[in-house]
Amino acid sequence: MSNHQISSVAGPDIRFVLVRTSHPGNIGAAARAIRTMGFARLGLVAPHKFPHPDAVALASGATAVLDDAAIAPTLVEAVADCTMVLGCTARARAVQLEELSPREAAARALAASVNGPVAIVFGNERTGLENDELMSCHAAVRIPSVEDFPSLNLAQAVQVLAYETRLAMLERVPQASGESKSDPAATAEQLEYMFEHLAQMLDDIDFHKGRSPVTIMKRLRRLFLHAGLDQREVRILRGIFDDAQRMARMARQKN
Amino acid sequence: MSNHQISSVAGPDIRFVLVRTSHPGNIGAAARAIRTMGFARLGLVAPHKFPHPDAVALASGATAVLDDAAIAPTLVEAVADCTMVLGCTARARAVQLEELSPREAAARALAASVNGPVAIVFGNERTGLENDELMSCHAAVRIPSVEDFPSLNLAQAVQVLAYETRLAMLERVPQASGESKSDPAATAEQLEYMFEHLAQMLDDIDFHKGRSPVTIMKRLRRLFLHAGLDQREVRILRGIFDDAQRMARMARQKN
Repeated sequence: MSNHQISSVAGPDIRFVLVRTSHPGNIGAAARAIRTMGFARLGLVAPHKFPHPDAVALASGATAVLDDAAIAPTLVEAVADCTMVLGCTARARAVQLEELSPREAAARALAASVNGPVAIVFGNERTGLENDELMSCHAAVRIPSVEDFPSLNLAQAVQVLAYETRLAMLERVPQASGESKSDPAATAEQLEYMFEHLAQMLDDIDFHKGRSPVTIMKRLRRLFLHAGLDQREVRILRGIFDDAQRMARMARQKN
Repeated sequence: MSNHQISSVAGPDIRFVLVRTSHPGNIGAAARAIRTMGFARLGLVAPHKFPHPDAVALASGATAVLDDAAIAPTLVEAVADCTMVLGCTARARAVQLEELSPREAAARALAASVNGPVAIVFGNERTGLENDELMSCHAAVRIPSVEDFPSLNLAQAVQVLAYETRLAMLERVPQASGESKSDPAATAEQLEYMFEHLAQMLDDIDFHKGRSPVTIMKRLRRLFLHAGLDQREVRILRGIFDDAQRMARMARQKN
């Protein structure tokens, strides 16, 4: 994968910065995580082992992100050009920082990226961000994990933030309609004709056997109305009703 | 970590099911991922290597989730008791399933969990879910990754879904139950029997007339799965199928 592919990843100047990462595999997994979400900029502050074959293996093809990673000796240097720095932390800290949810952080990062580079920062696997590192951050981000098991894997925390930032980007651009049903929705009139047909078919196959058809038809109406039928589905169902009626006619004719 | 800790994880009956996972490390990482988000139920369908030390290592303390994992030979068996089954897939598929975003899927899963167990299903690392496995799912979930690098690491996909489901839980305000359906939701097993019955009935009434039944059955599956059937509705529909088959038998006998 070449830099050409990287530069084809358009979008805001948001970088993901990993601080004092112990395991190179986590660097690779983080590279993959941001790449799947359309980001390409990885910052590494004093990684314990990098470059490393484990990073390449876990990047699973996102090697261009690793090749282009910016390495810095301190967080201050890694984010020197950034207009906003958000630090992920699992615990409430003594440092008095505004605390954002991942969703809030994504919105904030995207908005700020108009003005210049934005960094989302992740600490060491075991110790997280040190207090002095959090002091370099403009706000803290807390992934809402459970209290008795709060610590996400580093690359998974990166995934959550990259995912939310991608959603924030996607929500900003007008989207094509979500469902790719090609057939137009059935009209109320088509549905009423279908229900008449269904009622007649149930009569023909002697479904009611003397019981009142009213309750059953109410239930079936609700069922099919809830399904959100399109015009092709109405045609399919009416085709089934036709064949059931044909069988009933044949059965009767022979009697 | 004991079962005591697991049982302290209250909440909806939502299980995360990993199908034919190749790398036991991913099983461990997935266990950690769901545990951080407050979930405890892991299902494993024909894992290639499990139990395995890599799973324990990557679970990073979430060993109770691994110890309690339910292992099944097939996906059908793993989700037989579920009232809703959601399958994660990276690509648009031939299988005609409603496609949900992770956020939509989380809301749907949480709502359905009131009626019975819900499964969120993830395929093999390399091949994903096979089409026949997707056929066991009531809807597909697609994480909105970029087109030119769509494939998330398995445990990271699990993390995204667990994260969204936790958010949905946290955001949930006590809701007035919208629908006053008194009947319990149909289970995956009941729905599969119903689809078998439907297919047989269509054969019996000669609906296909030489055309392939595959496309029609896919469409009908989607239609009925989207309708959110309860057990009484399944009984009503199967009663209709029975009567149509009875007519077809009578018609044939007379010939």
